[in-house]
Amino acid sequence: MEKKFDFGMIGLGVMGQNLLYNMADHGFSVLGLDLDEKKAKALEAGAPAGTYVKGTTDTKTFVEGLSTPRRITLLVPAGKPVDAVVASLLPYLEKGDIIIDGGNSHYTDTLRRVKELAPKGFHFMGMGVSGGEKGARFGPSIMPGGDKEAYNHVQPLLEAISAKVGKDQEPCTAYMGKDAAGHFVKMVHNGIEYAIMEVISEAYDLLKNGLDYSNDQLHGLFAKWNEGRLSSFLIEITRDIFATKDPETGNYLVDMILDKAGAKGTGKWTSQDAMDTGVAIPSIDMAVSMRTLSAYKEDRLKAAALYQPVVHKIQEDAAKFEAQVEAALYISTIICYAQGLSLLVKASEELQMEIPLKDVVKIWRGGCIIRSTLLETFYQAYLKDPNLSNVLLDPTIAGEVKAGQQDLRDVVSQAAKSGIAIGAIQSSLAYLESFVSAKMPTNLIQAQRDNFGSHTYQRTDKEGIFHTEWEQHP
Amino acid sequence: MEKKFDFGMIGLGVMGQNLLYNMADHGFSVLGLDLDEKKAKALEAGAPAGTYVKGTTDTKTFVEGLSTPRRITLLVPAGKPVDAVVASLLPYLEKGDIIIDGGNSHYTDTLRRVKELAPKGFHFMGMGVSGGEKGARFGPSIMPGGDKEAYNHVQPLLEAISAKVGKDQEPCTAYMGKDAAGHFVKMVHNGIEYAIMEVISEAYDLLKNGLDYSNDQLHGLFAKWNEGRLSSFLIEITRDIFATKDPETGNYLVDMILDKAGAKGTGKWTSQDAMDTGVAIPSIDMAVSMRTLSAYKEDRLKAAALYQPVVHKIQEDAAKFEAQVEAALYISTIICYAQGLSLLVKASEELQMEIPLKDVVKIWRGGCIIRSTLLETFYQAYLKDPNLSNVLLDPTIAGEVKAGQQDLRDVVSQAAKSGIAIGAIQSSLAYLESFVSAKMPTNLIQAQRDNFGSHTYQRTDKEGIFHTEWEQHP
Repeated sequence: MEKKFDFGMIGLGVMGQNLLYNMADHGFSVLGLDLDEKKAKALEAGAPAGTYVKGTTDTKTFVEGLSTPRRITLLVPAGKPVDAVVASLLPYLEKGDIIIDGGNSHYTDTLRRVKELAPKGFHFMGMGVSGGEKGARFGPSIMPGGDKEAYNHVQPLLEAISAKVGKDQEPCTAYMGKDAAGHFVKMVHNGIEYAIMEVISEAYDLLKNGLDYSNDQLHGLFAKWNEGRLSSFLIEITRDIFATKDPETGNYLVDMILDKAGAKGTGKWTSQDAMDTGVAIPSIDMAVSMRTLSAYKEDRLKAAALYQPVVHKIQEDAAKFEAQVEAALYISTIICYAQGLSLLVKASEELQMEIPLKDVVKIWRGGCIIRSTLLETFYQAYLKDPNLSNVLLDPTIAGEVKAGQQDLRDVVSQAAKSGIAIGAIQSSLAYLESFVSAKMPTNLIQAQRDNFGSHTYQRTDKEGIFHTEWEQHP
Repeated sequence: MEKKFDFGMIGLGVMGQNLLYNMADHGFSVLGLDLDEKKAKALEAGAPAGTYVKGTTDTKTFVEGLSTPRRITLLVPAGKPVDAVVASLLPYLEKGDIIIDGGNSHYTDTLRRVKELAPKGFHFMGMGVSGGEKGARFGPSIMPGGDKEAYNHVQPLLEAISAKVGKDQEPCTAYMGKDAAGHFVKMVHNGIEYAIMEVISEAYDLLKNGLDYSNDQLHGLFAKWNEGRLSSFLIEITRDIFATKDPETGNYLVDMILDKAGAKGTGKWTSQDAMDTGVAIPSIDMAVSMRTLSAYKEDRLKAAALYQPVVHKIQEDAAKFEAQVEAALYISTIICYAQGLSLLVKASEELQMEIPLKDVVKIWRGGCIIRSTLLETFYQAYLKDPNLSNVLLDPTIAGEVKAGQQDLRDVVSQAAKSGIAIGAIQSSLAYLESFVSAKMPTNLIQAQRDNFGSHTYQRTDKEGIFHTEWEQHP
């Protein structure tokens, strides 16, 4: 009898192909399925020497070629394509087989699929994969969720192909919890990614337009920052971007790129789901808003003609302000993570996903887009207190935030005076000031609600629900 | 044959009762249905002298008591209760009858009901009603949407009972567009309401904690503001709130109210739907976030103990700062409306609702919670250009905004230095600066996206979609 393949993959785009090669490099025999024959052939042609990689365009051949329980990963576009592929597999599967959706599906879709397939005896897992194309090839961060029994069948493979961190080479993958936990965690990862990219772009704006920094200076500065506490994948690639020339014009490429930022929806989902979960993540919301607004180029050009905005240079010593921007970026970044992680805590409770926060930040330390030295700090915080509701409540992190808070305030203050929009940095500050405030001014809002809509209020001096017949006092 | 009633209402809570009395005052005979006999009887008992008002607990009696085409308004909680009531009516209805949902249903539910009932020959209209209990009784702003034929049957009644504005006593109701337009407009009304309430509460925080203003001073100031360009229902009731004493303690009541602000969901829906529609409304998002954060009182108390925040007094002449806060509040309020109205423009296109923006702002001039003198300004802008994509592009409004922009910047700057969170005011500034900017720093975000995910970019110098193989530049 022919030897069966260890692992199957459906969807042989760059991500799928790279993940398969990564598996093959680690000694697993892998079989790829794509309806596009070119992709199936390209998979085999490009396979690393000495590995066992095959491609096919036939679903039956594909399923029957896999050892049982079959472990089949899908890397196809979220939405209907996932359902279509799952339906195409069903006639050939056996009880106990495992389907793993490695795309960015919305967690509610994953939850639905888990519930649909469980009674048929099939395991459906949602799995987040972060790290881009290179990550997929050489070691991504992998966030699998679903039932534990199925996870046990894929754990050795995922640990083998994931990024490794630290002297003990700890794998950047772990069990993320029940049901759709893997996709929920990946969604929030992406939401945090949106926010951090936005705060970096705002720091860029401050330095470029507030201090007249050249791309050369920015390159040097980001290279320096990447050696310090800001060290992270996103700072690193930003450093690279500022040094990249456009071969056509000879200009710096970043200056030739149109300021319309695209989005694929996971940031939006994070904001929408946070609102449903009752968690405030204003920096992520603002990042979504700013990408949205960037697309209204036509309106913005009309508005620019009408308003003739003038950016005032930053009235501060450049070296001092540069250091303050570094601190503001650092603290804002902590707050972006804090918001996303607090969403995971609450959503895990509400949806009974049992997400281990400690493991989330542990596996984000390497491989993924939001990897940064900060993740080790968060990991230590969760090691101390696995039930931490918000990382801003960890004493070590609180110490860091307090040390940089005044710089963050000064940067927001200077930016406002200069007319430079730093929405996400500002939002991080507003979140911080409100979060550490024993008394927000929302008592007034509740008074207004009771006044016009009899929505009642609670009191500061006793328990209960109260209503007042408010009168006019002109 | 017994005379039939002109109009029916299901759900005899305070809002339903008051709307019926309002109709009865205007000479319409009205019939109310509530399964709670007490409410049905109370309706009759409380009816104004000389009016024709009856209550019943029986659906058949109710439907058969109405003249045809029957005009039945529902004021029941959004969600399943609406479906249940509609189902209970169906056996008794005749073709051409009109069901009007006057509650805060989500527009997608309304759209579904329109489509379900149309083939059966029934009209289903979504209708927003704003103005609170007093508004319902003496003149609310009414936002009906649905098919025009049905609207024609209710127009005279709605015009009679709505608030009136100006020397011509123009009614605060008009046809809001097709399908679920009425509920969409009302949802956005509420989103704007959230944002304005939040910016008012932030102004309160600045004056109370930044300038040590007493409630007495705040009362005087809001009374003064309400005589000027800020004149509005929300400023007026805020004025009243600052003068209201707590009978139990003798303190000002606002100080006895807990700072947990509740929410019923329409603000959240506005933010979520704006994200789906691809419109940036960051001030509304922030208002939602701040209400949410206000509920995390336990975490905030822990954080306050850990961070020991200190608010620094505003370093500015009080009279000058007070004037700047007034300007910041004014400009921020304009921007809150601008965001909400821009959502209506885009959603109307996307969902083919044909919402007449001119009429939206016209009927918000009176009766509703967000009525303010500003609505006349917006009305004039839409009279000049009914297709205005954003009111910030109207030259008159642009003039006002430009005149106050530096004050808004100064207030954000001062607040940041003082450690007072003014998230929604800040977000309004960030929106403004970005909206009037011909060049946002989002080119960097697109460069990052292309770097790690091959998401491609557009160029400033030519058409097309481009991708770069980014290299490391350490």
